[in-house]
Amino acid sequence: MVKNGTRGERDLVKLLWEKGFAAMRAPASGGATKKPLPDIIAGNGEIYLAIEVKTTARERIYIDSEKIGALLRFSDIFGARPYIGIKFRYRDWIFLSPGDLELTPSSNYRLDLDIALERGRDLDEVTGNHRQTRLR
Amino acid sequence: MVKNGTRGERDLVKLLWEKGFAAMRAPASGGATKKPLPDIIAGNGEIYLAIEVKTTARERIYIDSEKIGALLRFSDIFGARPYIGIKFRYRDWIFLSPGDLELTPSSNYRLDLDIALERGRDLDEVTGNHRQTRLR
Repeated sequence: MVKNGTRGERDLVKLLWEKGFAAMRAPASGGATKKPLPDIIAGNGEIYLAIEVKTTARERIYIDSEKIGALLRFSDIFGARPYIGIKFRYRDWIFLSPGDLELTPSSNYRLDLDIALERGRDLDEVTGNHRQTRLR
Repeated sequence: MVKNGTRGERDLVKLLWEKGFAAMRAPASGGATKKPLPDIIAGNGEIYLAIEVKTTARERIYIDSEKIGALLRFSDIFGARPYIGIKFRYRDWIFLSPGDLELTPSSNYRLDLDIALERGRDLDEVTGNHRQTRLR
């Protein structure tokens, strides 16, 4: 059974190809490596993206600080822009920079839909197509 | 049981990290996508590599033209340098550009060890460390 996360990653990889990016998912279970890996890497020769993918039926997401740390480390070494790509149900993908997230008391990260809509970018923006449609 | 190819890929990913690159293997079975994917993507913010990995106990390798085509297409879109990374037994990794390969009568590709040693680059070269040790 294809897990939600995987289906979301595949969906986003497909969309990235349609925007002229070559995109690749990380191996399942990180490919048995302890190295920090994002869920997706994509590039179009100018823009390189490292994306942590979250899908949810709720209006809030949580992300471990470890995952954000890994995303930042990978992006820094690889030379990619780090994004959290979120699929809230019935909405288009929204992309947040790690700095857009809110810290929880237990030092993890949280983001509510309304803040995501306010701070987030859409697929066209992160892929350099610059046609931001109001996310609200 | 870890197949030879997978062990080779993991070995090369580890070496790339050691050279200051962030490297990631493609998902097993290409992640159920028909898109052209290399075995490994790596980057250090300046150099981006897309690598098709071959390991062999013999002194000759064969590669389907389809794989080379996929490597070239992915590299072109992503913005990466395409390489075939070959691990001949008891030797260091050798990296060939697609143009270094020989075409077979059935329009696939072949490469013998002695030609690989002649035309190939070592890991330092492809990672921009420029210390070419004679491969012979």
